[in-house]
Amino acid sequence: MSRRALLGWIGKTAGAGAMYQAMTSLGFAAESSHPGSLNLDGVKKGATVLVLGAGVAGMTSAYELRKAGYKVKILEFNSRAGGRCWTLRGGDSYTELGGATQQCQFAEGNYINPGPWRVPYHHHHVMSYINEFNIAIEPFIQVNYNALVHSTKAFGGKPQRYRTVQADYQGYAAELLAKTINQNALDDSLSLEDREKLFESLRHWGALNEKGKYQKSHETSLRRGFAIPPGGGLSGKGEPSDLIDQSALLQSDLWKFIVNGQDIEFQSSIFQPVGGMDNIAKAFEKRVGDLIEYNARVTKIDQNDTGVTVDYEHHGVAKTAKADWCVCTIPLSILSQIPVKASSAMQTAIRSVPYASSVKVGLEFNRRFWEQDEAIFGGVSYTDLPITNISYPSAKYYDKGKGVLLGAYVWGPNAFEFTSLAPEERVKKAVEYGKQIHPQYTEEFNNGIAVGWHRVPWTQGCFGAWTEEKREQHYDNLCQVDGRLVLAGEHASHLPAWQEGAISSAHDAIKRLHKKAVATAA
Amino acid sequence: MSRRALLGWIGKTAGAGAMYQAMTSLGFAAESSHPGSLNLDGVKKGATVLVLGAGVAGMTSAYELRKAGYKVKILEFNSRAGGRCWTLRGGDSYTELGGATQQCQFAEGNYINPGPWRVPYHHHHVMSYINEFNIAIEPFIQVNYNALVHSTKAFGGKPQRYRTVQADYQGYAAELLAKTINQNALDDSLSLEDREKLFESLRHWGALNEKGKYQKSHETSLRRGFAIPPGGGLSGKGEPSDLIDQSALLQSDLWKFIVNGQDIEFQSSIFQPVGGMDNIAKAFEKRVGDLIEYNARVTKIDQNDTGVTVDYEHHGVAKTAKADWCVCTIPLSILSQIPVKASSAMQTAIRSVPYASSVKVGLEFNRRFWEQDEAIFGGVSYTDLPITNISYPSAKYYDKGKGVLLGAYVWGPNAFEFTSLAPEERVKKAVEYGKQIHPQYTEEFNNGIAVGWHRVPWTQGCFGAWTEEKREQHYDNLCQVDGRLVLAGEHASHLPAWQEGAISSAHDAIKRLHKKAVATAA
Repeated sequence: MSRRALLGWIGKTAGAGAMYQAMTSLGFAAESSHPGSLNLDGVKKGATVLVLGAGVAGMTSAYELRKAGYKVKILEFNSRAGGRCWTLRGGDSYTELGGATQQCQFAEGNYINPGPWRVPYHHHHVMSYINEFNIAIEPFIQVNYNALVHSTKAFGGKPQRYRTVQADYQGYAAELLAKTINQNALDDSLSLEDREKLFESLRHWGALNEKGKYQKSHETSLRRGFAIPPGGGLSGKGEPSDLIDQSALLQSDLWKFIVNGQDIEFQSSIFQPVGGMDNIAKAFEKRVGDLIEYNARVTKIDQNDTGVTVDYEHHGVAKTAKADWCVCTIPLSILSQIPVKASSAMQTAIRSVPYASSVKVGLEFNRRFWEQDEAIFGGVSYTDLPITNISYPSAKYYDKGKGVLLGAYVWGPNAFEFTSLAPEERVKKAVEYGKQIHPQYTEEFNNGIAVGWHRVPWTQGCFGAWTEEKREQHYDNLCQVDGRLVLAGEHASHLPAWQEGAISSAHDAIKRLHKKAVATAA
Repeated sequence: MSRRALLGWIGKTAGAGAMYQAMTSLGFAAESSHPGSLNLDGVKKGATVLVLGAGVAGMTSAYELRKAGYKVKILEFNSRAGGRCWTLRGGDSYTELGGATQQCQFAEGNYINPGPWRVPYHHHHVMSYINEFNIAIEPFIQVNYNALVHSTKAFGGKPQRYRTVQADYQGYAAELLAKTINQNALDDSLSLEDREKLFESLRHWGALNEKGKYQKSHETSLRRGFAIPPGGGLSGKGEPSDLIDQSALLQSDLWKFIVNGQDIEFQSSIFQPVGGMDNIAKAFEKRVGDLIEYNARVTKIDQNDTGVTVDYEHHGVAKTAKADWCVCTIPLSILSQIPVKASSAMQTAIRSVPYASSVKVGLEFNRRFWEQDEAIFGGVSYTDLPITNISYPSAKYYDKGKGVLLGAYVWGPNAFEFTSLAPEERVKKAVEYGKQIHPQYTEEFNNGIAVGWHRVPWTQGCFGAWTEEKREQHYDNLCQVDGRLVLAGEHASHLPAWQEGAISSAHDAIKRLHKKAVATAA
């Protein structure tokens, strides 16, 4: 009996209440919108925890452990909290590996988030702290139908509108499928009833005409935009737009760019903290800042049956911190360079995860030409150029001052190449590439800043780039409570690169550490 | 030669510059993001215009005509400006036809827009005034993948997530089409090269596996959501979710709801003024308020070769206003009840346009349960119930106070039925229906307000519901400059119900009126 048939049977014989119950148990239930409770009850009086790293995983651990009753201390390499939850604003200075220092010259109120820049609605751990700490958020516009999709190899390099590619791809696909229904090619796959519904739905979905054709018309222009938009009075009739040639569209590969907004990580609603991602870091810092020793470079992690000893350097002075337990959130790219007393399985795991390469470039322009000239408000334009995309600010719409674009978000081999350049060369390259999409760059570019994650001193990489194979071999070993030490961070999660991974990893780690602490004789 | 072949030929023989030019002329050009210039030069000294109605069409006309040099006066029925550009807040009082008065009891900062509530990015006339007047705007979340789609006739009446219906519908459609490719059913329609690209694109677009199947998997869950979402540490592996049965999905009709966000009028980016739509009205009023006589009920519009005479009642006193020219923005539903001196063709047109019926109900709840319990932030849930949809506020996310939903947006026969009820009964009905989607209504409902547009004294209907046939017969007659009178408003546009229609209609009307005024001997 199929699930549908089963449900029908339950509905008929047992009524709607039983049906609802049954559906819930069959997986139709609304998912939980809250992270599980931590329940860190029964902390032993005086128990101490040392947290390494004041990024969001570290600060989450410290915040929750102190609340539960532990005495907590945090060691942080930087002179600020947040780690990769980081925002660069005018006046900020940033020195990368190799010594190149950039002074951010953005105008007041402009910024770039070199690390995470979005919080999806279902990242319940992050969202629940945003709620608890009253951090102001605003919609991040991920999908913008008026943004551009661009391939150097298609349409003579001329960018197309997202909406025309979206509408025409979907319309043509619907048309082809409708045609196969009419040719009886699906008779073996679907019942007559379902074929009829499918045809009806394809017409609706693909903006097809009565015969199932996707053609230049008022209806298709209501999806892809008009050649002349309808308006008022005697001059307002409007004119439908021409379709993109079907073969040209398929061969352009531009259809690659129109599903990003359907990915669960990028689906609407998706948010950003008002004014910069580091407002999340600051909200944590406000609550655990008193526990943090800044400018503390960990040099050794030791442990025995009674506790953990961490050596660190503080402004050139060697120091030592001791605690009963340790939560280490140092990125594996760094941790693998530090002596750690742990099982050989964990040590191998620590050394086994390569870090993804990524570069972000923020470009400030004299005016928000994308809004003023092109009616692009927020969202992302995609390209096959190494800059990958151009993201428009989801804030201060129609502001009359300078504006900052994320002018490059480079990955993989291109990112290594970008990182190898001096910062000002990275900026220059982002401008050169971006010009192909927005010619206004030439006239309006003002200044820029570039962060190549493999040159960030405290991560030397962007995030833990697990492969399925490596995860199979090492992940569980990495995440174990090893003696008195547990690791946390995005690298110790199934959501690498995301703050949700870091925070949910911290929750999972401290729950297990606490359980062991309670079970262990003092 | 196909357009594509033509472009290829131009590209090869004439270089990229010529190619770009050719593409532009072939319709690939970026559309203008600005309304056309008004150019109201050469106004005769002392020329006067009477504007009837201080809605956005009337105030646009007055603002531009005064700027051009005309002496302008506006007569407005209400004691406020804005017309349907209207926001109800706590403390507001509203009396409908029949005398029922509602006191809006919303908490500070909460509101409902009974009329227009969205401004799409391409409504360039509205957007350009938003820009010029520095009206703060924020994204209106139209599409929310975590909102609900609901049919009383499907899935036992249990709401489904937008994202599961979207992902599964698209996935199944892609799978069926991929299958026909494998069965060679498209060999006559597409070249081999295009069939291969189509298959590749369908895999990407529909989250199909290597064989072209849409199946329960990590990949499909990355679209439709996981049964257990991936997270951190040892507990974070996550579990993929079950698909909706294909036949059940087709027969549910829920696919009707997943294309709304692809309609050009609802595509992202789409905005709302921060704090209420009437901020647009207020920005105009700030600039032309000194021209407005409020509480002025027009009773007769007369004209001859030398000017226009309008009779009106002002607090029960009969008065008369005269001017050289008149822009009348009174809704046709009202204008058809007033003697107007105009050609019989225009008079017939005025009487020929029925007004759409619509009801909006705002419901205030003790808390924003949709956010706190269900992670629904903004966006719209759709249902086949008479309430049509539930729209969640696109502002003040995670606010801890009371929250207001658009609890009903009723159309057609249902709207007539709703309108026939007393306001408190409309609210009650919206709560009863809404409970089927959000059971929290029972516990959390606090107060509500309902606007049935056919009982709004100054419009007696929602907007001009043109049919193609009526437009063919009457539209041009309606829009002519008739002697010294011209009509403007959404009813005199190809964008009925939208402020863009009203404002672009005003631009078109005053351009033509001005042309005639300049050409006419004083």
